[in-house]
Amino acid sequence: MSMETVSENACFGGVQGVYRHESTACNCAMTFGLYLPPAAGQKDVPVLWYLSGLTCTHENAMIKAGAQGWAARHGIAVIFPDTSPRGDGVADDEEYDLGQGAGFYVDATESPWSPHFRMWEYVTRELPELVFSEFSLDQGSQGITGHSMGGHGALTIAMTRPDTYRSVSALAPIANPTRTAMGRKQFAAYLGHDPDRWSLHDSTVLMRKKGYPGPILIDQGEADPFLEHLAPSALADAISSVGQDAEFRMHKRYDHSYFFVASFMEDHVRHHAERLHAG
Amino acid sequence: MSMETVSENACFGGVQGVYRHESTACNCAMTFGLYLPPAAGQKDVPVLWYLSGLTCTHENAMIKAGAQGWAARHGIAVIFPDTSPRGDGVADDEEYDLGQGAGFYVDATESPWSPHFRMWEYVTRELPELVFSEFSLDQGSQGITGHSMGGHGALTIAMTRPDTYRSVSALAPIANPTRTAMGRKQFAAYLGHDPDRWSLHDSTVLMRKKGYPGPILIDQGEADPFLEHLAPSALADAISSVGQDAEFRMHKRYDHSYFFVASFMEDHVRHHAERLHAG
Repeated sequence: MSMETVSENACFGGVQGVYRHESTACNCAMTFGLYLPPAAGQKDVPVLWYLSGLTCTHENAMIKAGAQGWAARHGIAVIFPDTSPRGDGVADDEEYDLGQGAGFYVDATESPWSPHFRMWEYVTRELPELVFSEFSLDQGSQGITGHSMGGHGALTIAMTRPDTYRSVSALAPIANPTRTAMGRKQFAAYLGHDPDRWSLHDSTVLMRKKGYPGPILIDQGEADPFLEHLAPSALADAISSVGQDAEFRMHKRYDHSYFFVASFMEDHVRHHAERLHAG
Repeated sequence: MSMETVSENACFGGVQGVYRHESTACNCAMTFGLYLPPAAGQKDVPVLWYLSGLTCTHENAMIKAGAQGWAARHGIAVIFPDTSPRGDGVADDEEYDLGQGAGFYVDATESPWSPHFRMWEYVTRELPELVFSEFSLDQGSQGITGHSMGGHGALTIAMTRPDTYRSVSALAPIANPTRTAMGRKQFAAYLGHDPDRWSLHDSTVLMRKKGYPGPILIDQGEADPFLEHLAPSALADAISSVGQDAEFRMHKRYDHSYFFVASFMEDHVRHHAERLHAG
């Protein structure tokens, strides 16, 4: 695989890089951000995957979430993938919640999405292969987090592959998409009408079915205008009913913005660092 | 004066607001950001003015600089003014370093700029009057900082009005504009050809003439691509020759971006908080 450096900026003693490569999974050029902490100069460092929400590119969280300072202190890298395939030859939709910017971290089986929209494959196999071959990262020490659609991605990926992702957290995740109007629309478009396939990508369903072998940190704002799409109470109920080790924090006054994300980023990076450094 | 709330988001336990008002100084509507820390609920809090650089609005630093978390911890507010008047009726230039987004924190005397470009008056008189009447802020405890053109604004304003601004710092300031091609172009456009007027707005000249009655913190990246416009060594020489109490830090590998700004924001907020809380 070849990779092109788009930019590299010194940041909190480390380097915030942006890189582009031809993706086989997505069948188009893909761009991602990678923050390497100062400790990356001495050894392979743990990795935190940060999955972003609807409409975001690799850039939004990289600029707004304030993760780098905490990652520098804890000696972990942070990877910021894009949220979908992109380009003139890639299918799109005029709505913000479908198509480019809205990959939903699934492998689409339906037309017109299936030729490019393979974000599960991209985030869990292809991009890891690339970054672990190109950078000084500890493949045995990976955690995953994300915001909104990215929180959905983080939770579903971690519960499906707990041996790979040793820590997981989420900020305002889309938590029960098989039961919400927006989620059902996206699943029907990308995955067709087989409910068994949908269930593989629903945090609440996965929680009731298998859970996660470790503590989960979830933050949610009570003033979030998208609560009906997120369905936090469905996931909270599932966590409670199966006895999952989790801290599910509801925050008065907080909304869905990056001001919310940034406010709790320190706790999320610490949550992952404690587990990823535990060896 | 009337003021309109554009947005308010919970942020690090406080509120990041954006407000709009009709400015008499700039003769147009102006927008600014204000971060109120949690402590603002109990008492009037100190204020840090953050002046932004060329091309920025009130929004860039508010989103990218990561100041709010540190301001919350130290119990100080941060104000993010816009960098110029704006609107269809406001003069502009096709270059990024003149006109809208490039107010340079001076009161223009020349055509076509003088009807609106009065950013010195706006930042030092009109906007303070508004915010101190509308919010729970301690008018007796103000500090000022900024980046690039905003670092120029912070240093020149603080040295001119040290009784008002009890602490000052700057990140990659435009430090000697009377001697650089870009600075001379801007001064000629806004202020005409009287060198005495230019000198009132040059940090290096003001440092040699009066200095500042307190310690100054300045950070500058050595990999900054705009060093010829910034002229940090001229200011460093002036600081050294007059014996100004200052920490002028040059940072290897750092450039001019917000990744640089965010990396050192903790130190700047602490620098101000220590002085503003000293009473």
